[in-house]
Amino acid sequence: MRNDSMRQSMRFTEPPAVAGFGCVAGKKEREGPLYDSFDLTGEDTRFGEPTWEKAETKMQQLALQTALNKAAMTKQELSLAFSGDLLNQCIGSSFCLRGEGIPALGLYGACSTMAEGLLLAAMSVAGGFAGSAAALSSSHFAASERQYRFPLGYGGQRVPTAQWTVTGAGCAILRPGRGRVYVRAATVGSIVDLGITDAGNMGAAMAPAAVDTITAHFRELDRKPEDYDRIVTGDLGAVGAQIVRSGLEREGFAPGGRYDDCGLMIYDRHTQDVHAGGSGCGCSAVVLCGRLLRQMEAGEIRNLLFCGTGALFSPVSSSQGETIPGVCHAVWLSTERE
Amino acid sequence: MRNDSMRQSMRFTEPPAVAGFGCVAGKKEREGPLYDSFDLTGEDTRFGEPTWEKAETKMQQLALQTALNKAAMTKQELSLAFSGDLLNQCIGSSFCLRGEGIPALGLYGACSTMAEGLLLAAMSVAGGFAGSAAALSSSHFAASERQYRFPLGYGGQRVPTAQWTVTGAGCAILRPGRGRVYVRAATVGSIVDLGITDAGNMGAAMAPAAVDTITAHFRELDRKPEDYDRIVTGDLGAVGAQIVRSGLEREGFAPGGRYDDCGLMIYDRHTQDVHAGGSGCGCSAVVLCGRLLRQMEAGEIRNLLFCGTGALFSPVSSSQGETIPGVCHAVWLSTERE
Repeated sequence: MRNDSMRQSMRFTEPPAVAGFGCVAGKKEREGPLYDSFDLTGEDTRFGEPTWEKAETKMQQLALQTALNKAAMTKQELSLAFSGDLLNQCIGSSFCLRGEGIPALGLYGACSTMAEGLLLAAMSVAGGFAGSAAALSSSHFAASERQYRFPLGYGGQRVPTAQWTVTGAGCAILRPGRGRVYVRAATVGSIVDLGITDAGNMGAAMAPAAVDTITAHFRELDRKPEDYDRIVTGDLGAVGAQIVRSGLEREGFAPGGRYDDCGLMIYDRHTQDVHAGGSGCGCSAVVLCGRLLRQMEAGEIRNLLFCGTGALFSPVSSSQGETIPGVCHAVWLSTERE
Repeated sequence: MRNDSMRQSMRFTEPPAVAGFGCVAGKKEREGPLYDSFDLTGEDTRFGEPTWEKAETKMQQLALQTALNKAAMTKQELSLAFSGDLLNQCIGSSFCLRGEGIPALGLYGACSTMAEGLLLAAMSVAGGFAGSAAALSSSHFAASERQYRFPLGYGGQRVPTAQWTVTGAGCAILRPGRGRVYVRAATVGSIVDLGITDAGNMGAAMAPAAVDTITAHFRELDRKPEDYDRIVTGDLGAVGAQIVRSGLEREGFAPGGRYDDCGLMIYDRHTQDVHAGGSGCGCSAVVLCGRLLRQMEAGEIRNLLFCGTGALFSPVSSSQGETIPGVCHAVWLSTERE
């Protein structure tokens, strides 16, 4: 499954299949261009819950249940769940799985969590360690704003490079055997920090990690951009996506028109006032578990390189003068098993 | 590696070996009964850094380097690191691995992180997905107090059931092949919540998860307490450990004298004023990567069931009236390969 030149990457000789996937999104996301790719959307930001944090848990529960339904599985049949979110101590995820009797492993990968969960789920299924495994992640604009930045009522002005945290949750379930989409390989990223300190420009902070991981993916697995119909980063937005594009060109892997970013796909930047685009764990989770996997099932995308990107900082690290480290994990999804 | 009756557990047919391990602890830990099992200890709580959070990162770096040294490996030879901590957004871990070029997957398992990392490292090595993998975790008393409870200067009174967050970091590195200690099997826990709301009694909140996971481990793998020289939970302290002991007896798995808890081992409760015992990600990390693995290498323990325990709450979830969910992951370490 690996050779010594593949330090970061793994190829699955028995590629796990996507058994089911689901996504839930908020009101603003429903007003965007991907409106018809969500399984469920909310009328407001609460999903019937008294707090934004509980709403995030509720979105995860709905995404998980939707994915289970599509996989024709019960919770009791799910062997393992990998999940994480942006809330302190990942309470969105922990409370989602509380009392469900599902073996649960918590992740913290910031906005790279969906890709991290997907590669770990693939590893557990492909290695025969779990009969099935879910990857699950979420974010919530309002819960995130008050935790990372300002109370919403404060009405803080947003800078042009700022991104809008997606309210949404996505879930994909993997199992062995045949399916319409497979996880063929993955590349684990290392933590890269080129010294960005501006928490209002996370796209720039994460982009170098994306270039690093995508380049490693091509080199270690002897692949090239042309092997993919789409190469999609998680939530770099307009600023970060441009850095990735030029970074990949510089490394000799010009992605051309096949490159896109979930943060640019999810909103209409001209009409939705999101500045540089979408962000948050939920951003890549709902775009993957909505539009992208639907397009793969429809045969519109045959090979996808899904690259979750995360900014691994906190308000405390920023207030202590630290720069913002980034990470990116890449997962190769394909409609072909080999 | 698994059969259908093993939903939560996995047995490694090619058990990874512990290539190296290391631990770093603070001043109070050095004054406790395990003083001679730490590789490095600090004179103060800062480890030469300007803030407690940076000190936590520094401890992780020292623990990782110590484990690499013992494994006679360089950072460039390490294929994968699983790490996590208690700080919001796990900054202790992210900043430790920043710029090191080590493929990194972040975890959030609260105080169960060392066990979670160890089982994922074992899965990646045993499955052939990584040439080597580290599990790394830490906590810091002062950083944790100010984040979860009160500023230290406030001098808040501690209740008798409260525990003392360990200042320390531990790291274990796994690789294929022969060694003195192997990871033979693991059981992934699900999230259990019996309704404890008192953040000053986390042992009681986590204990039901420990009973659930340890019982599943025995049943799924057809094992019994007598198969282990030691069964050790992570950080339940005096209150939680008593609940686990009686819970296991009720389930027909009375552990007898072989049961202990890292939170009870690390401090002298009669002289060190820690109330119910130690806690934090660092607690089980330094006891495993110090005393326990040393005893295994010396042949004093041949089979160890290491059960990391975590309380998956946050100050926000508590202030919103939520109860405290717990989780426990169990890892079977053995001096025998089969």
